[in-house]
Amino acid sequence: MRIILDGMGGDNAPSAIVEGAVLASKEINHEIVIIGQEELINQELKKYKYNNEKITVADAREVITNDEAPVRAVRSKKDSSIVKGINMIKQGEGDIFISAGSTGALLSGGLFILGRIQGIDRPALASIYPIVGGEPSLLVDAGANAECKPNNLLEFGIMGNIYMEKVIGRPSPRVGLVNIGTEAAKGSTLTKAAYELLEQSNMNFVGNVEAREVPKSACDVIVCDGFTGNVVLKLTEGLAWNILQVIKRKFTDGVKAKLGAALLIDKLGELKKEFDYSEYGGAPILGIKGPIVKMHGSSNANAVKNTILKGIPFVEENVVETIQNSVLEIEEITLSE
Amino acid sequence: MRIILDGMGGDNAPSAIVEGAVLASKEINHEIVIIGQEELINQELKKYKYNNEKITVADAREVITNDEAPVRAVRSKKDSSIVKGINMIKQGEGDIFISAGSTGALLSGGLFILGRIQGIDRPALASIYPIVGGEPSLLVDAGANAECKPNNLLEFGIMGNIYMEKVIGRPSPRVGLVNIGTEAAKGSTLTKAAYELLEQSNMNFVGNVEAREVPKSACDVIVCDGFTGNVVLKLTEGLAWNILQVIKRKFTDGVKAKLGAALLIDKLGELKKEFDYSEYGGAPILGIKGPIVKMHGSSNANAVKNTILKGIPFVEENVVETIQNSVLEIEEITLSE
Repeated sequence: MRIILDGMGGDNAPSAIVEGAVLASKEINHEIVIIGQEELINQELKKYKYNNEKITVADAREVITNDEAPVRAVRSKKDSSIVKGINMIKQGEGDIFISAGSTGALLSGGLFILGRIQGIDRPALASIYPIVGGEPSLLVDAGANAECKPNNLLEFGIMGNIYMEKVIGRPSPRVGLVNIGTEAAKGSTLTKAAYELLEQSNMNFVGNVEAREVPKSACDVIVCDGFTGNVVLKLTEGLAWNILQVIKRKFTDGVKAKLGAALLIDKLGELKKEFDYSEYGGAPILGIKGPIVKMHGSSNANAVKNTILKGIPFVEENVVETIQNSVLEIEEITLSE
Repeated sequence: MRIILDGMGGDNAPSAIVEGAVLASKEINHEIVIIGQEELINQELKKYKYNNEKITVADAREVITNDEAPVRAVRSKKDSSIVKGINMIKQGEGDIFISAGSTGALLSGGLFILGRIQGIDRPALASIYPIVGGEPSLLVDAGANAECKPNNLLEFGIMGNIYMEKVIGRPSPRVGLVNIGTEAAKGSTLTKAAYELLEQSNMNFVGNVEAREVPKSACDVIVCDGFTGNVVLKLTEGLAWNILQVIKRKFTDGVKAKLGAALLIDKLGELKKEFDYSEYGGAPILGIKGPIVKMHGSSNANAVKNTILKGIPFVEENVVETIQNSVLEIEEITLSE
């Protein structure tokens, strides 16, 4: 397998990207190609001992930033790491593309260069949702589609179900629909119609899930439109951060508190780690004809390493083809409506 | 002022309701009328010393439960505490109606019996949003309207702004729109159009607020559609609960941890209290021609007391009339579109 890694994307590129590649390379037997401005990447690579048959560099002169309009950037910057990297997947020169760069550019690049899986109306970003004190869930869509139709939510469920089972390794995942009430008739026009479609599928659909139950692991695959998904993900991040800050402030307020906190230092470390996204790897873009994984913009070397490792089953388990084959099922369900 | 209190609504009725009324009565000089099955309420009242000129009972034989279809329940149960209580407001026999009963029934009752404020398209539920380590924000809509038009979001902003300023006492509140990006052009069709309307208003509109910033007090009035609002509120509740559970579990795991936790017991108590909704009073229904406040279904006596106390400025500051007067402004803005 050949993993194409964007050397230019994210806040800590190329240093954290290169370091992550070196770390991952020690644990796997696949080839990693770091794409980007080669002199910068080589400069970073020099800092490490690595097997130069397992890590190589491909040159790409341009960089797409987060501030650029994604569609335009992808169309005009043909020599960018993102466009060239995704083209390598299309040409069969690589098996998976991993980047901490612009989500919009990765989505647009995936759509224009690789194209949608036939029958999938809207590709989606699937994000790991951390469960404090438990195994993470998968949230689809995490923000690619602010507005959705009911069949999009069915597609998100089917794609998330396959990824959760094949890549994360959870058999028969519980698929839940985020809604403002548990009864089938509750919610918006969108969720009511999506409920009916999901219920007719052959997935392990557990019905509507209220947002209150999402952090308590009410389902393995959390299905919602991209607006809601983005709100769920970012609110979780912000609230957890805020609670940890207040804990920190309170636990260092006074001698007695400080002493107590010193005794609990291991436990506090564990707590913080529960929210550490870097353990779980990146967010796959599902529904396009090739594996693309988006990493958090602030990914450190450990996050890069983990994303590379979790990318392997994405390829080996043929997730893209499995989704392709499941499309038939989607079409049968939606046509019967 | 005469406060009408639903003696039959909520999980702990009538005991917690009656106890809360007795507690509140000691702090205020207004009359509290508890409405419901009088023998049950009197039985509870007997347990306390109270001034029987300040607390009286009005009989209502029927009870509307959370399981009933709200519109139907309000139409058929004329002798219920909710229908009779709201009718008392209409007849001028009471100034505010407070209930821990069915949100749907309170909304329907408010709409049918009191009616919308002229010019308000959609009444909304406004809920206190707790900020850990800070002053609470106000979230509008918290779930009354799963689907909204842009002008509804403008109305939510205007009503929330007035309530925050007049009742909670925060001058020139920062009004923010929940969105999936901070730039004006980001988000869904709904949020883009709502942004333009809010920007033209004379409120202190701080623009789009990402969900990540909501728990960090990015704005005082959090504006969003009822689906998103419900997700924000319930996710916050569920996640905070989950984090506190994990803290509890970790901090009692082992002798060293237990000792540390013992030293931090005050701080942990403070932390828990940050999430205690009962301190802040209930959720006003804004946009109808009279003050109605919905309390959490699980309200205890302290929550009931606080809701009664916070209900007083809702009446004294003429929030309903102020909203009425502000409608002119809404109409000017939306007509100019």
